[in-house]
Amino acid sequence: MTTPTKNDSGRLLVQCPDGPGIVSAISTFLLEHGANIIESHQYTSDPDHGTFFMRIEFHCKDLTEKRSKLESDFAKLADQFSMGYRFSYHRDTKRTAIFVSKDPHCLMELLWEWQSDDMETDIVCVISNHDNARGIVESQGIPFHHIPANKDIREQAEAEQIRLMEEYDVDLLVLARYMQILTPAFVERFQDQIINIHHSFLPAFVGAKPYERAYNRGVKLIGATSHYVTNELDEGPIIEQDIERVDHRDHVEDLKKIGRKVERRVLARAVKWHLEDRVIVTDNKTIVFR
Amino acid sequence: MTTPTKNDSGRLLVQCPDGPGIVSAISTFLLEHGANIIESHQYTSDPDHGTFFMRIEFHCKDLTEKRSKLESDFAKLADQFSMGYRFSYHRDTKRTAIFVSKDPHCLMELLWEWQSDDMETDIVCVISNHDNARGIVESQGIPFHHIPANKDIREQAEAEQIRLMEEYDVDLLVLARYMQILTPAFVERFQDQIINIHHSFLPAFVGAKPYERAYNRGVKLIGATSHYVTNELDEGPIIEQDIERVDHRDHVEDLKKIGRKVERRVLARAVKWHLEDRVIVTDNKTIVFR
Amino acid sequence: MTTPTKNDSGRLLVQCPDGPGIVSAISTFLLEHGANIIESHQYTSDPDHGTFFMRIEFHCKDLTEKRSKLESDFAKLADQFSMGYRFSYHRDTKRTAIFVSKDPHCLMELLWEWQSDDMETDIVCVISNHDNARGIVESQGIPFHHIPANKDIREQAEAEQIRLMEEYDVDLLVLARYMQILTPAFVERFQDQIINIHHSFLPAFVGAKPYERAYNRGVKLIGATSHYVTNELDEGPIIEQDIERVDHRDHVEDLKKIGRKVERRVLARAVKWHLEDRVIVTDNKTIVFR
Amino acid sequence: MTTPTKNDSGRLLVQCPDGPGIVSAISTFLLEHGANIIESHQYTSDPDHGTFFMRIEFHCKDLTEKRSKLESDFAKLADQFSMGYRFSYHRDTKRTAIFVSKDPHCLMELLWEWQSDDMETDIVCVISNHDNARGIVESQGIPFHHIPANKDIREQAEAEQIRLMEEYDVDLLVLARYMQILTPAFVERFQDQIINIHHSFLPAFVGAKPYERAYNRGVKLIGATSHYVTNELDEGPIIEQDIERVDHRDHVEDLKKIGRKVERRVLARAVKWHLEDRVIVTDNKTIVFR
Repeated sequence: MTTPTKNDSGRLLVQCPDGPGIVSAISTFLLEHGANIIESHQYTSDPDHGTFFMRIEFHCKDLTEKRSKLESDFAKLADQFSMGYRFSYHRDTKRTAIFVSKDPHCLMELLWEWQSDDMETDIVCVISNHDNARGIVESQGIPFHHIPANKDIREQAEAEQIRLMEEYDVDLLVLARYMQILTPAFVERFQDQIINIHHSFLPAFVGAKPYERAYNRGVKLIGATSHYVTNELDEGPIIEQDIERVDHRDHVEDLKKIGRKVERRVLARAVKWHLEDRVIVTDNKTIVFR
Repeated sequence: MTTPTKNDSGRLLVQCPDGPGIVSAISTFLLEHGANIIESHQYTSDPDHGTFFMRIEFHCKDLTEKRSKLESDFAKLADQFSMGYRFSYHRDTKRTAIFVSKDPHCLMELLWEWQSDDMETDIVCVISNHDNARGIVESQGIPFHHIPANKDIREQAEAEQIRLMEEYDVDLLVLARYMQILTPAFVERFQDQIINIHHSFLPAFVGAKPYERAYNRGVKLIGATSHYVTNELDEGPIIEQDIERVDHRDHVEDLKKIGRKVERRVLARAVKWHLEDRVIVTDNKTIVFR
Repeated sequence: MTTPTKNDSGRLLVQCPDGPGIVSAISTFLLEHGANIIESHQYTSDPDHGTFFMRIEFHCKDLTEKRSKLESDFAKLADQFSMGYRFSYHRDTKRTAIFVSKDPHCLMELLWEWQSDDMETDIVCVISNHDNARGIVESQGIPFHHIPANKDIREQAEAEQIRLMEEYDVDLLVLARYMQILTPAFVERFQDQIINIHHSFLPAFVGAKPYERAYNRGVKLIGATSHYVTNELDEGPIIEQDIERVDHRDHVEDLKKIGRKVERRVLARAVKWHLEDRVIVTDNKTIVFR
Repeated sequence: MTTPTKNDSGRLLVQCPDGPGIVSAISTFLLEHGANIIESHQYTSDPDHGTFFMRIEFHCKDLTEKRSKLESDFAKLADQFSMGYRFSYHRDTKRTAIFVSKDPHCLMELLWEWQSDDMETDIVCVISNHDNARGIVESQGIPFHHIPANKDIREQAEAEQIRLMEEYDVDLLVLARYMQILTPAFVERFQDQIINIHHSFLPAFVGAKPYERAYNRGVKLIGATSHYVTNELDEGPIIEQDIERVDHRDHVEDLKKIGRKVERRVLARAVKWHLEDRVIVTDNKTIVFR
């Protein structure tokens, strides 16, 4: 037996009404198609009438050749159980674009994880409404695009951004402290594909200037939240949150510095889990199979 | 030199407009009165025109006899620097009353810390609008009073509570998951002397049913907040906060169970710090000298 | 469909050489026997030639009646895949004995979790080499046995302890800060059934006086470790560990106080996971399916 | 009143036998010399016969001009109380050299903190026994020196390193995962000036291959420790430690990845505190005035 290559590795995500026989059907299907289950997670939202969710990581010899048969055969099974499902293949590396404004710390953390081979993706471009990160981005061999943006030129900026998203064939868009609002049209086009980092422990401090408001309220912990972007500001499905301790000596500028460390960490984790197909959105929440 | 006894130990808390010479004046005063500084914390709210805060723990031989002279002499110094100040003495153990409703976990934690000699106080009584904690409280030799309370009989319940507060000469009132609203009159009577535990990470989920709302929002961390009670619901000065990680598998009942652990911890810390005179309220925030 | 009762709930733990078809075989078996998978975890120690581990929580109507057939049928499947396995049933509540010495904090935490219905067990007795916890234990309706123990009378103490273990038909023995060494004969008799709490972050500070040694080394974090007891002192399989931050102001007595909080937490988690059949011992390590 | 400039800011660190009048003497001294206390920390190792430690941050108009008088006047006071002491001035930015081997993550974190103005220092050079970090270092305008090193050429490598330390007039040397042993002569030359990051929770896993050994022991948390280097391997005074949670699924390579995040964080904090003169070494431990 040889260690499976990246080409022979894949994942299957399934979601369907709960009922008897689903695990048996899926695992028997994979067995019959020569796929070996490496990792498996499941969750049922409710013991009665709930929804069943599953994520399977599998190896399968000659997967690239077998893909289309695997998928067409699975379609029948899916039909029988009213499944929503998705196959993903390790060889189809996801293509990520990063949007950033002035503060580069979240961008830097993502670049760092990517360089260290801790993030399963190709970073295909970085787009910013400022020009200051160009040097660091281009030094990594990643294309950098400066697209000025503000509320007056939002539509033309987005037109250009969308053109680039298509040109680069982007699978995931990460807002790494991108401080511009996106239009509903933009957001709808990339549903569950845009991950944002908000610099507060949501739902506390929705909206602008969370550190200033945290300071004014005298909180003892500050946080950050990574979530999928929807058209309700800061109301999208939360993927990950974390906090750091602060005290009375910390002024707004200190909160910002401390906050940068949480933001970096939280965004990197959320992006990593998304890229590994560990996150399922349901009912404006996330299931994260870790 | 002999190890100082509890009788010879005290604390001084000072607050005044910042300016030159304060530390020198206070430390020289203590030296001249035979008091040895054991622990000292200071904080200035702003380098320009700020407020200066100080907490000093000191030993002084024959403190009980010297007290009144110490205080009358200090009054002159305080006058000179426009100080607010307070002396407290280890032999004057603070007297704590605990209010609780049905859930006993926070009460239990406080009793436990107190039994273990980790909490500098006498627990003089427990008051509840339910009778279920009577056994455990009385088994510790602590008086238990069952005072039914709801919004229709609030005033007569509070009259009885206030009578007991006075009879027991209470210094601190801890709301250990006491689920009744207190009237403004009650709250004003015990300003900065009532500590509450709120079962969320404030300012998220102010008000009722925070775990239900946390569940609905799909947060990945739940928290608890201990704060002084003011007449703005859940808006009082925050003393301490902490969180626990949750995930998609945790339903409301799980959040409540997990939350109990955070609530216990957060309330116990806040009460302990208050009793050790480590907390100063200023501008609806707290300075906690740890 | 009605919500399944405790009587209809069970778990299956399996361990076998990895290979194709295991998940399919088990899930099909359960389907054919009318058992619905509620929760499932699996882990393979190594992609090549590894060991496969699985924990399934299932519901099955009339489980009590079907038990013996389920087990005898599964024996054939197990044989085919060379499985080690174990069924456990929610209605067979596990029977726990607690050993404690002078410090009651871990005992108290376990009693507290048990009273709050957060721990799936019957606490059938508490045994101590001191008499001080008798009151609190008996007030909960739990039998308390005072068996003096020290190295000179170890054998006769253990003879009495074993007699009680058998009389009470104990499934799990928790050493909740029991400060006596157990003999190899005793330990072997209860393999993987004795959980201890060690008051350090193992493998740091194996053996006696860990807080004193932590103080002397000047560590900035102290920890606690819960592990199964083996005949190598503090070398058994680790179930859970956690830490608390300390600083230069904390003397040995402070470390002990802070440590008590970690010990309580770590032991309670480990015991809870064991009781829910989430822990599998393999190769002097644990797999914890959380 | 104007906000004080960096030129007018300084710190005073004092250590002496405890006794009455020290705080009064120091604070009165500073008052008389026109220095305003901004932040102050003190600690007494033992109430009886202990050692007193103090760190004061102060502002003083025209500090640069007054420095020499301040220091010569303080010498008399110090003499009277048998003080060890040290003044440091914000305008004398400390000069830091970083040693690194192949793994750049700790170096990167330090560069990042420094770029973000979160680290009070000039990074004057980076020295490595490998050449791979040259690009990133030089792109920041920092000199990079490749000095091959192994046990056979240790002395000549160190001769070259010491030459550079002197040429760059280095105040602090950070071993950011530098995997070579330093000779006793080297270490003695830079006492309490070399900070190392060890990739375990010391005193667990002293020495080589801590992640491999952590994996073999089956720990549930991995850690990192930042300490001053002494000639006892991994036995120097600990400045900071932290941990991350791991589980049975994490193999050695995963522990290393997770560990990198802890190492970065722990080293950055320790270096920051050292640079802000918050760390005092005493009796092979550290006092950290945070």
